[in-house]
Parts: sequence; C-alpha cells; structure tokens
Amino acid sequence: MSGVPATLPAARAWLPLVRLAIEEDVGPGDATSVLVVEPGRRGAARIEARQHLVVCGLPVAEAVFRELGAEVAFRPRCGDGALASPGDTLAEVSGDLRAILAGERTALNFLQRLCGVATFTRRFVDAVEGTGAHVVDTRKTLPGWRLLDKYATAVGGATNHRMGLFDGILLKDNHVALAGGVAAAVKAARERAPAGLRVQVEVESEADALAALDAGADFLLLDNRTPAELARIAARVGSRALLEASGGVHLGNVREIAGTGVQRISIGALTHSAPAADLAMEIEPARERGSSRGGAAR
Amino acid sequence: MSGVPATLPAARAWLPLVRLAIEEDVGPGDATSVLVVEPGRRGAARIEARQHLVVCGLPVAEAVFRELGAEVAFRPRCGDGALASPGDTLAEVSGDLRAILAGERTALNFLQRLCGVATFTRRFVDAVEGTGAHVVDTRKTLPGWRLLDKYATAVGGATNHRMGLFDGILLKDNHVALAGGVAAAVKAARERAPAGLRVQVEVESEADALAALDAGADFLLLDNRTPAELARIAARVGSRALLEASGGVHLGNVREIAGTGVQRISIGALTHSAPAADLAMEIEPARERGSSRGGAAR
Amino acid sequence: MSGVPATLPAARAWLPLVRLAIEEDVGPGDATSVLVVEPGRRGAARIEARQHLVVCGLPVAEAVFRELGAEVAFRPRCGDGALASPGDTLAEVSGDLRAILAGERTALNFLQRLCGVATFTRRFVDAVEGTGAHVVDTRKTLPGWRLLDKYATAVGGATNHRMGLFDGILLKDNHVALAGGVAAAVKAARERAPAGLRVQVEVESEADALAALDAGADFLLLDNRTPAELARIAARVGSRALLEASGGVHLGNVREIAGTGVQRISIGALTHSAPAADLAMEIEPARERGSSRGGAAR
Amino acid sequence: MSGVPATLPAARAWLPLVRLAIEEDVGPGDATSVLVVEPGRRGAARIEARQHLVVCGLPVAEAVFRELGAEVAFRPRCGDGALASPGDTLAEVSGDLRAILAGERTALNFLQRLCGVATFTRRFVDAVEGTGAHVVDTRKTLPGWRLLDKYATAVGGATNHRMGLFDGILLKDNHVALAGGVAAAVKAARERAPAGLRVQVEVESEADALAALDAGADFLLLDNRTPAELARIAARVGSRALLEASGGVHLGNVREIAGTGVQRISIGALTHSAPAADLAMEIEPARERGSSRGGAAR
Amino acid sequence: MSGVPATLPAARAWLPLVRLAIEEDVGPGDATSVLVVEPGRRGAARIEARQHLVVCGLPVAEAVFRELGAEVAFRPRCGDGALASPGDTLAEVSGDLRAILAGERTALNFLQRLCGVATFTRRFVDAVEGTGAHVVDTRKTLPGWRLLDKYATAVGGATNHRMGLFDGILLKDNHVALAGGVAAAVKAARERAPAGLRVQVEVESEADALAALDAGADFLLLDNRTPAELARIAARVGSRALLEASGGVHLGNVREIAGTGVQRISIGALTHSAPAADLAMEIEPARERGSSRGGAAR
Amino acid sequence: MSGVPATLPAARAWLPLVRLAIEEDVGPGDATSVLVVEPGRRGAARIEARQHLVVCGLPVAEAVFRELGAEVAFRPRCGDGALASPGDTLAEVSGDLRAILAGERTALNFLQRLCGVATFTRRFVDAVEGTGAHVVDTRKTLPGWRLLDKYATAVGGATNHRMGLFDGILLKDNHVALAGGVAAAVKAARERAPAGLRVQVEVESEADALAALDAGADFLLLDNRTPAELARIAARVGSRALLEASGGVHLGNVREIAGTGVQRISIGALTHSAPAADLAMEIEPARERGSSRGGAAR
Repeated sequence: MSGVPATLPAARAWLPLVRLAIEEDVGPGDATSVLVVEPGRRGAARIEARQHLVVCGLPVAEAVFRELGAEVAFRPRCGDGALASPGDTLAEVSGDLRAILAGERTALNFLQRLCGVATFTRRFVDAVEGTGAHVVDTRKTLPGWRLLDKYATAVGGATNHRMGLFDGILLKDNHVALAGGVAAAVKAARERAPAGLRVQVEVESEADALAALDAGADFLLLDNRTPAELARIAARVGSRALLEASGGVHLGNVREIAGTGVQRISIGALTHSAPAADLAMEIEPARERGSSRGGAAR
Repeated sequence: MSGVPATLPAARAWLPLVRLAIEEDVGPGDATSVLVVEPGRRGAARIEARQHLVVCGLPVAEAVFRELGAEVAFRPRCGDGALASPGDTLAEVSGDLRAILAGERTALNFLQRLCGVATFTRRFVDAVEGTGAHVVDTRKTLPGWRLLDKYATAVGGATNHRMGLFDGILLKDNHVALAGGVAAAVKAARERAPAGLRVQVEVESEADALAALDAGADFLLLDNRTPAELARIAARVGSRALLEASGGVHLGNVREIAGTGVQRISIGALTHSAPAADLAMEIEPARERGSSRGGAAR
Repeated sequence: MSGVPATLPAARAWLPLVRLAIEEDVGPGDATSVLVVEPGRRGAARIEARQHLVVCGLPVAEAVFRELGAEVAFRPRCGDGALASPGDTLAEVSGDLRAILAGERTALNFLQRLCGVATFTRRFVDAVEGTGAHVVDTRKTLPGWRLLDKYATAVGGATNHRMGLFDGILLKDNHVALAGGVAAAVKAARERAPAGLRVQVEVESEADALAALDAGADFLLLDNRTPAELARIAARVGSRALLEASGGVHLGNVREIAGTGVQRISIGALTHSAPAADLAMEIEPARERGSSRGGAAR
Repeated sequence: MSGVPATLPAARAWLPLVRLAIEEDVGPGDATSVLVVEPGRRGAARIEARQHLVVCGLPVAEAVFRELGAEVAFRPRCGDGALASPGDTLAEVSGDLRAILAGERTALNFLQRLCGVATFTRRFVDAVEGTGAHVVDTRKTLPGWRLLDKYATAVGGATNHRMGLFDGILLKDNHVALAGGVAAAVKAARERAPAGLRVQVEVESEADALAALDAGADFLLLDNRTPAELARIAARVGSRALLEASGGVHLGNVREIAGTGVQRISIGALTHSAPAADLAMEIEPARERGSSRGGAAR
Repeated sequence: MSGVPATLPAARAWLPLVRLAIEEDVGPGDATSVLVVEPGRRGAARIEARQHLVVCGLPVAEAVFRELGAEVAFRPRCGDGALASPGDTLAEVSGDLRAILAGERTALNFLQRLCGVATFTRRFVDAVEGTGAHVVDTRKTLPGWRLLDKYATAVGGATNHRMGLFDGILLKDNHVALAGGVAAAVKAARERAPAGLRVQVEVESEADALAALDAGADFLLLDNRTPAELARIAARVGSRALLEASGGVHLGNVREIAGTGVQRISIGALTHSAPAADLAMEIEPARERGSSRGGAAR
Repeated sequence: MSGVPATLPAARAWLPLVRLAIEEDVGPGDATSVLVVEPGRRGAARIEARQHLVVCGLPVAEAVFRELGAEVAFRPRCGDGALASPGDTLAEVSGDLRAILAGERTALNFLQRLCGVATFTRRFVDAVEGTGAHVVDTRKTLPGWRLLDKYATAVGGATNHRMGLFDGILLKDNHVALAGGVAAAVKAARERAPAGLRVQVEVESEADALAALDAGADFLLLDNRTPAELARIAARVGSRALLEASGGVHLGNVREIAGTGVQRISIGALTHSAPAADLAMEIEPARERGSSRGGAAR
C-alpha cells in the first residue's frame, strides 16, 4: 500500500445515515434518562475492544455524539486502521450524561459493523500478501452503507472497485448479449463512454478475452473460473489489460487464485458476510461504574 | 401468533433508506447500460431463492423499482412470511430494461438482508415453540435499518421490543445506580413516565426483583442469569410482572431458557449476526437469457 | 413532581418547525430593513411579559435568532418553568440589528403560544393539587407542534400521555368493536404488543372494566363518566390498573373529578384552547427606543 | 368580494406541515391498529360540524389521508367557504380502515384550527359590512402555519396583508427612527425598494402623515389611534394613500373604526385568538358504529 | 444610489444551491487528490481577476469552502461591488489542501457567473447615469439562481424588480384580456390584492395608460414602444404612476430610452446574456507553484 | 455517433433543481393570476423556436408543469436532439390556466439554456466532423446544472468527460508536483485508484508524455499546446493512450486541432459561454390570444 491512507469520505456524504440512525433510535427523546438523570449531569465512558480487530469508524462514532447536539467530548485513542486487542480502549467520551446514554447504542452499532468489515477484509488481504494481487470489494453492500462499507474494506487493505453504477463501466453477460458479442459491446463502449472510465467486460473464455482486448477493453472480468483457467488467460493477456477474478472466493482458496496472475480478486463476502466485531462501552456516571453491554440492547 | 400478521411500516418511514440506496448505487446514472441498451427496450426478470428461507422484504424491493421512476411492473409470487425453497420464484419483474438493470443489485441487497434476518429469527422461534415464551429483538440493529430489521424479526415470528429509546422505559444498571437503587428508580419512573409506557427495570437478584415489584415495576430484565436463577425468580414473581431474559442466548440454549418461566427472551444476534440469504435475479432481455448473480457485484 | 424537570426534546426534533417559520416569514429577505438599516448595525432588545405567565420556550426563541445566521446573543433571564409578572424581562437579545428585526415576530409567535399553553395547564394542575391525580394532555395539539405543545404542558406541570400513535396502545370503542369486545381486544393486544407498551382500553361500564383487568389491561380509559360512576369504578379497580378520566373537563369540575380516585385526568383544551400569552419585544437600535408591539404585526 | 374566491396555495407549499404532522403523530406506526385491525380491512367515516362554522381546510384534510399512502377516498360534501350547521357532513372518507384511523386525529386537528380561524374572521367581516373598509390579517400567525392561517382569514372574508417580511415594505417606528424621520425613511425606501412593492409607513400624527405623503408613501399605518384621530387623518389624506388602522380592535369597536374612513383594519386576534371549531369524525368499520370524538385524543 | 449597499440574502436561501453544486462535483469524493495528497497537508491559493470586473459573490465562494467541512480560511481582499483589474487578488484561501482542490472549480464557477452579471449590469447602469432612470432586472434568470442573479444585478447597480410571482402584481396582456380590459383588470386587482403590493399593468396605448391610472394602477409597463411613444405617454402620466419600458433594450439604445421620462428600464439580457467573467485560482501546495486554470476543467 | 442516443439522467437527479426553480419563482403563489383568472379555468399554449436550434430539455420543461401539481398536459412535438427552425412548435401545453401561467417563465428559462448549450455544442461537433476527434465538455458548468449541462452537450453531439471529481482521475500540474513528477504520480495512482477509473495525467512535454505512458497512464492531457506540438506528441504516443487537447479552443481553430491526431478536444466554452436560445410561449386562454414573450419577464 502507498503512503496515503484510506480516506473517509466527507461527512456530508454519510451524515444522512447517522441522522437516520439517531432519528430511529432516539426519535422524540430518550424516555428513560429524563426520568432519572438530572439535566446537565456529566459522565464519562470508554469504548473498548472485546476481540482482536482492525479499528474502523471512530469519526462516525464521534459524529453520532456531535449530532445529538449536547456538549460531549470524543477523544479517539487510536486511528482508523489501527489493530486493537481485547481490552484496548478505542476512544473516551465525556460530557453530558444524557447525551452519552442516548448515543451509546447507535455509536456501538456503527462501530461493530465497520470494525467487523475492516477486520474480515484484513484476513483476505493478509492471505494474498506478497502475490501482487489486490483484494477488491463489490456492490454487495448494505443499502445505505455503500460509502461506509467501502471505506471499511479500504481500511482493511482492499482496493475499492467502482462505488456504484456511475463511476465504472462493467459490461456483464447481459450487456454483451444485448450488444451482440464481446467485441461489439466493447466497441460501442469505447466509442461513447465518458473519457475517464475504463471499459471492463466479463469474458467467458480465452477467445472472448482476446476479442475484448482487440476491441479496446482495458479490464476483463473472469467469473467463476478455475485457477487453471485463470492462469492460462492471465498468461495470454499479459499487461494488455487488468484481470479480475470473482466468484466463490473464500479464505481457503484466495491465495491460490492470487497466484494465477490476476491483479484483482473481488469478494462479495467482505461486505455481505462480515461478522460484527465485539465492542462495548463502559459508562461511569460520577463514581458508579457499569457496563452497558452486559444486557441485550432493546 | 394471532391472526393479524406482521405489519410493514408505512413506506414514508423507510423510503429514505431506499432512496439513499439508489442514490449511492445509481447516482447520476448507470454508465454501462446507456452504452448498450436502447432507451425504451423492455425485459423481464425473476427473483428466486437459492436456499430455504422465510420471505421478507418484497414491498421494499418493489419500491426500489418504483423509485427508479421508469415503468416497471413488480409481481410478487408470494407474500412476506412465506417459506421458499431453492429455485422458488419470489417475484417477477418486467418493463423498462434499463430500470431493471439499474435496480437489480439494490433490490437484491435489501432482500438478502431482510430474508436473512427473518429466516434466522424463525429458527429461534421454532426452537421455543410450545413453551409460551416469546423471542424478542433488541436495539442491536443496523443503523438506518431499525424499522426494517424489526419488521424482519416480526416476520420471522419474534415479538418486537421497543422500537427505540422513545417508546419504552428500561432502567438499566446505570440508571438504577444514578437513582439510588431499584426501588427509587422505579418509583421515580412511575411518578413521571408517560402514561402509556411500561416501566421495565434490570434486576440482578431475587431481592431486587421483589423490590422492583413493590415499587410498581411492570416488567423486569434479567441479564446473564443461569437457567436456575431465572427459574427461581420466575417462580417468585409469578404473574405480577413480565420477565425478560437476555445475554448469551443461542440456538443451543434458547429452549432451556424458555422453559424457566420467563415470558420474553431477547437476542441481539437476530439482527447483528443473521447471515445474508442467498437469492438471485435472472434477467431476460428479449430472448437472451443471463444470470446476474454469477459474478460478484461491483 | 420529582426533582428532574420537564425536558425540551433535542433541537433536531423541532428545528424543522423553526426553519419553516423563518422561511415563511423572512423568505428571500426582509424587504424593509435592507432599505434603512445599514448592514452590520447593532442593537439590543428585551423580551418582556405583559401578564402573569409560566415561562416556556426560551430555547426555541433563542434558536430562531441562531437560525437567522447572523451574530446575535440571546441571554435568558430565567428558565422555562419560572413564573413571570407583567414587566418582567424574560430574555435580552443583542447583536446584528437586521437579524433582531427579522427574528422578532417569529420568536414572539413561538413564545406567546408556548407560554400560553404552559400557563393554562398550570391552572388545571394547581386546581388538583393534593389530590394525587395527574393532569394529562392529549393528541389534540396543533399539527406540527406535537413535541413543543407537549413540552409546554409538561412545563405547566402536566404528565404527558403518549406522544403519538406509536408509543402507546389505546384500544378505543372502534377497536373494541372490531375485536369483538373488551376482553378479546385486550387479549389480542397483550399477545402481540411491543413489550414496552402498556395496554390501555376504553371501558364503558364497571363490567367492562373488570373484564379488561382480567384480560390483562394495565390502564383503563373512562370517557364522559359522571364523578359518581368514576368513583364507583375506581373503588372496584383499586391498584390493579391505572384509571384515566376524560371528556368535558374544565376548571370548574376538574377537582371534583380528581377526588374520585382516578389517577389521570386528560384534557384536550390544554392544547386546543389555551389563550396566547401576552409578550412584547422592545428594540433599541443605538439610542432610539421603540416598542415593536404597539402595532399589529403584518 | 370579487368573483374569484380565496385560493389555497399550491400543496407543495403546505405539504411539509402535513408531513410533519403525520410524522409526529404516526411516526413508525400506529401501535394499536396493527393489533386488532386486519390489514386491508375497509371502513368509512363522516366528518361533521358540531357548531355553526365557515368551512375551511378540506383539501388539507384530504392531503392527510393521501400522504398516509393507503387507498382512501375523500369526498368533500361542500367547498371551503361554505357555511355549515351542527350535524352537517363536511366530507366522507372511505377505504383502508387502518389509514382512516391513523389519519383521523391529524385531519381533525387541521380542520378545527382552519375552520376556527375562518369562522372567527367572518364575524369581523360581517361586522364591517357595507362600510367599505377591509378586515386585514397580520403576521401574528402560528409558526409554520403562515400560508394556511392567511388562507383561512381569506376564506373568512378578510384581505391578506403581506405574507411575510419579503413581500411588503412596512416602515415601523424603529425604522423611522433609524432613518431620521418619516420623510427620510420614505424617501430612502422609494429610491431603492423593489419596483413592485408599496411603501407603507407607520405615522403617529397628522403632520407625519402629510410628510409621508409628500415623500411618496403609498400606504399609512395608524396604530392605536382613537376613532376621532382616525377620522381626522382620513379626511386629510383622502385618496392620496391607503390608510390602515390597527391596535386594540375587537368585535365591539370594529364597526366604529370602519366608519372613520380608513380602508384597512388589521387584527392580530384573527390568528392568535381564534377559538378552535368543534368538529368530529364518525367511523364505521363494517357495521359497528362509533364516535371518535367522545373521548380525549391521546 | 443610497448609502445602504446591495444585500446578499441570508445564506439559508442560497446554500441549497451551493450544496447541490458541491454534491454534483465532489459527490462521494475527489478520486484524484486522495491518491497523491496526504491527508492533513496544507496549502494556499489566490483568486485573481483576469479582466476588469465588478466583484460579486465572494461570500458564496467562501461558503463553498466552508461547506466542504475541512478547515479552510477564506480571506476576501475586497468587498462585493468593488472594481478589480487584471491581476488583482480578490481573495486568499489557505488550509487543508484537499479541500482547496475540491472546492476550486465550484467556487470559480460561482464567481465567474456572479461577477459576469454584475459587470454586465454595471455597463447599462453607467450608460444611463444622470438621467434619473433606473435599470431593472427581470425574471429571465437561470433556474435555481434567482436570488443570486438578482443580487448580482443589484451589485451592478440595478434596481430589482419583483423576486418572483409572489411579491409583485403584473397584469400582462393575457391577464388584461381575461379580465375584459385594462380598467376591469386593475379594478379587480385593487379590490383584492394583498395590501403591500403595487398594481402594475401592461398598457399598449396612451388611452390604456389613462384608463389604468383612473382605475387605480400604481405602475405601468410599456413593452416594445418607440422612444417617441414612451416620451408622449410619460408626459401624460407625469407623477401619477411609475413607468417601466421594456423590450429590445441594448447598450446602444438604453440612454435614449432613459431620456424619455420613464423611471424604470427592464432588461432580460442582464441575466440571460451576461458573459462569464475571467477569473483564476493559483494554488501553492507547500512550495511548488501551479495554476489551476491553464487547463480546461473536466 | 452510435445508435444509442444521449440519455437524460433520471428525474430524481435533476428534480431538486426544478423544485428550486419553482420555489424561487412561484413561492407562496402567483399574486397576479389569483386576481383575474378563475380557479379551474383552462387554456392552451405553444412553445416555439424563434431561431434555428438543437432541441434540448423538453422532459425538463414537462417536469416544471408536472411539479406545479395542477392538471396540465404537455405534448412534445419533437424529441431532444431534433433540429428546429424559427416558428417550429416544440411542444403544446394545455390544461389549468393558472398552472400554465405559473410555469411559463421557469419552463422557458430551462429551455433557453439547454437548447442554447446543445446548439452551441453542435457547431463545434459539426466543425470536426470526419476527423475522428471527439468534442468533450469540462467541469466549467453552471453550479447546480452539472447533469443538465452535460446532457445538453451530449445532445449537441459531444462526448462527456468526467461528471465530477468522483468518476475520473485527472492528475493536473498541482498533483504532479506534489507527487514528485509525472512518473511518480501515475504510479501512485495506478497502485491505489479504484479499478474502474482511467488514470489521466497532464503532461507538458513529449518527455513527460513518454514517462507517463511507461508508468501506466491511460490518458494524457495536453493543455495550451500548439497544433504542431500536438501533432508531434500524437505521433509518438500512437494508440498507447488517449490524447486530449485543451485550452484556447474556438470555432476558428477546432478543426485544425482535430487534425493533429488527438482523440479528444475539451472546450469550457460549451457550458460557460453558450448564448441562450430564443424561444417563446404563446398562451391562448379560451379565445383571446397573447404572446408571453413580448415583454421582459419580471
């Protein structure tokens, strides 16, 4: 990886999700805290890891408390991308106790997802280390979470594929069929595509791959091919285009695929099957000490 | 379960998430389809199950295509709550082919999550069948997805717990400590709570439970208790209040817990650990036939 | 009342109304001030009571000036809930004179409503003092004003009833008829209601009341009953459920009703018939002194 | 009044308030109806007057049901501006019963306000009939309700004053002082005001009035003047400008003021003190019959 | 012109356009800068004129950088309305380099339009100097830009006409025909128009003009009349109403028209034909120096 | 050009601009029409060309009338991309007369801009016909208009460059300097860029161009180069990358540049200097006939 780290998109791009999350959880107000917590009472809390994980999402958690509008200080103790062990403190929160209680669950819900995706991704990235192949994400993200999910895969070390349908051209089997074959599809795309976008095309055979290259494709997708097929095509294509393998990739076979000469391996599971990370928030109102995680959040 | 089925909240409550999802995936437009699909070309598609699952989210998938604004007909072939087997068709889609291609991934991303949660929940509900205990969800949902996640658990047969902080009172350990004990906390809540909300309190012992009842609690939370403890407290509390068990519940122990006499068992994993369901969409532009699921979605 | 005072919901919940109010009054700009007030000119103003009133809404008035975006300092001279007499200063405002002039009417329009509701409510609360009964508000609020209206009744000393249809269950006559009677309605509700909500049911007779209790109702509504009927039912129900009286309540009969043993008395007039409070804002640009209230606001 | 009746502004201008109102009342859903009303069950209802009133707001009530998104037919039985007597049906509603129940209170809350303002205004308009003077409203409207409140006064027969600060110039005492006197203020305004706006100025004496006319004022405001003063100034001004009287106007003195020769009488009470009109909605699910108004709305 | 300068409407009125502009240009993020600019790297830039121009829009440009959310200081070196020569610095920008790069094009796109309109307007204003006639703008503005376009004409020295259909009455030929003639149209308008709005009417002849005056019109529009016709009508109308000339006005004939005695000359070209002003932004990351304007912006 | 025509982005992407435009022009209502046009009165209108032009924007004009919410039928008489001559009818509009009057100016303001850009672009496209070079647009569009402006250039026959900063990588001089030279910049980009985006880099010399190619650039920008320089570099680069020329392109030199062998010529003037097209709308209320364009729109 280069020296410029993964970049969280500007807050305006994901604040709507944070606001939706607060709205759905807090809505007109926390019916419990107003009964027993005096307005203005202050407290503190620590967010800690309960497993080994890749930290991801601290600025989002911070935004949760900031959006609640009360005076709360959020002090990250590490940066996104750091590795944490069980018991490590990721951040300290202090200030208005009602706001801390109101934001606790939403902040944790964001972190357990984002750390989860980053941590799961890192395992794939580690598995291909040294092969020169890049782990790439897909559009199989949670609706509403595209930017955050893709940020988390980048924090985990993956390379992003297109953000959506708008910033990449991928001629899949349906498009190829409609255009009357790989060559025709690529040609039509080359002729009219926005100048800044590569033309990627799904190919099903070596012959297809060569036809695509001749028509001007920059980038080929090989879906559900065996490592042997991938290696054979990679050898033929050489540096004429980028090669991406996809379909049925798991931790058990990713390194073998990476060794075939493809430069990109895309994995839907990074975002649709990453297990949530285990994190908790310990709140300390005044003196008393309690864990907010013991019980289920209702 | 009663005869009135689980109710999807009105569209205005979850359309913002659908719009966010379309915005993030389609944005200014599908850069690929405009190159090879003539405007106005029509097509058809089937959404099919690739595993045994509880169907959930068809009206949301329909809304995805409706929000895209082009003329697309969405015909569900079953209702939410139905059981589907691999190969079963959940819905048929037909109309403007560009719109079908543009909505495909977003619709599937919604369905794989919602069917996933409903299917996973159903396993817990089946496990406690006949015990009289209800499986209950928690606030450990995906940010932005509270309503949909809770709808999916209801479709799976669970009873919803509070939707957020605003429609239920739950005095947890922190609140109890702040109020100076269980009795004081419950009393303060009874005195000032909105009239329509039950007062639930977390109790750590039999003594606490009895103090809570005497102070007027309607509903007790027992977190991380052994089945033996749960049974003992349930015997003492009888019908004076609802009892909820939580913490460390899994498919292996849920039936034992259900047999202790508690009426509610809450399980965070319903929404934070449900595996995505396996679904696909087969598109047929004119004659040609293609599967949109073979490859990873990028 | 307990020591924790009424809580204004977080600003994000009512700022949309403040913004709507500014938009409708100021719109593209104040056509008058730009003609005669130099940009950057400063001034000061006092908001004062012109009648005896319960103060309510100062943070909302402050938000009006903050939303106008110019530098204006708002210094409350008392807190919501305080009692004010004619001539008392509620707040001082100083800063950009154009912004003060632009926000004056909107701020006063909010205050005259909120102080009006709080003041009117307090008269009912005072009338039942010592009886143990609580004055409760209803959903007969001004559209768009639910949270603020309910905040104002709470500042006036009332207990809030449900905020809306979502955070309380009230089986009214229509629901009971649909379900086939009180017992059936309550039973259906108990079986499927979200765990944190009480089940309240409207009953028309003592027999109904007892049937409701047996079916598990927590809370009964007695609408348009005579004090004698209320007392008889209250005696029978005892502590088995909360009792709420409603219908035709006014300052002349509220204390008699409070003496019947019901714990809640709900009054629609708190929010649909509260007279506006009399308040004014005195502006002092530089030296000159003028009252902005003498004339009608057009 | 001319033959072109009062015009309700386009829905886009007041739908935000309708949506706010639904959001605050229905929010994530009606917790009661889903328990006892089968999805798809149909019903009907009548909205009826319970007092003599000027009908106002039927299109707004209709929008409430339309915004709820379910299939509901709303059939007005008269138009805005009609006179209704106790028992008269204003509109019939039929369709999805859950939607009817969900929209009932919000629709009634809008109608009781708008009919209330129109009815109260009509009393003033009737009082000045034949004098040639117009009753005019002010900016003392409910925040968020400016357009609807002003529509209601127009339905009641009043002439609207400026909608907000943006579509009328009114130099009040503060502005006059800042500009260095009436003549200077009017002159500055004439020089730079948008071409389509009249220049109105508050004057405190006959001398002021004449100075204003000489400087080019179109329109004078006379605040808190006695009928004798008004008559004297009106005699001097003649047709050179419009004259508006304001301050302390009530049903007992409005006709006397109208006889002084002023063309406009502005009255804040039209919108800040109009009592709510008495209306009810009778719902008939299938056969059973019930009144939704008997009890307080909570 | 009076001493109170043209006033930029409050930011809330035009921020939606700024946000739309950032959204459309930056969207999910700047794909280039994140590759080669380290997060947190700082830089500086100068915005400079490349032609003689009237400065307009600096607060809008500043808002672009503020909305990007990173720490950027924007220091105007002059105020809107100032005259700049080629090479003059209008503003300096410094801070987060990624934000400067992200906002550069959007800020320049705003400035080149607003300076362009102000500069073009000033040429007309200078052409009529000393005649007493005012240059007036029209509603032929860019959709979405009404407030900003009208601010720019005011900065250029023009008088604004109505902002939209809501804050001015202009009875055009269609309206007159519908009402049955000029006198009838003006009369209907005088009877029912909001009190603060002038009644302007388009007249096609001297007879029409006199009829309009007699019916109470404040303001006449003379469209596509020769200077001779304008002079004749102006002589007859005198000070009884404002006169506006329009149609086919250009720099070559505007002064002649101004000499006919009309007080207002309205010119659509001010906003639909103003050429963009030539401006550039020079960025200096650390030491290195580069011009962002050399190349076309893509 | 290929057979698939330019595609207007989905309405959701540009409706915010249409709504902004209606809001700013109509706001709370058309103050004139309500005075003289009876509610429900119907009329018809024709939109006609007053010059030779490339039609562009009819669906946007249609949306203006649809958004106004009244019943108006919009019948295009040709499609976007058609050529029109003076007097040709582009569309017919009929229905609610108030809505036609309210939407007239906004619809025309959209059309005159979009037809203007398409028409101006077509002149450049015609100028390079047969050379094989493509005319390309830039990011010098009107803020808020990016999608519509780029649609208009595509209708005019240009190829779009990147839509914004998010869907294309362009390493300009500043980026190159920061990265330490062309080769380093391209390498960093190739390593980490999203897989679907080409890497374009600005080069200042033949040596730079070759270094960029060796580092893996797909696409070179040559800014402000003479035709001779362009030709020399094009000869060296051959088919190894796309070449784009920019800077100082006008109708007088565009064909010469197109002959140098570059494949793309980008021209900021397409969107920042396109003159508005001349269009008008003729309204016919009932019988009477009038032109809405004779006078200036105010």
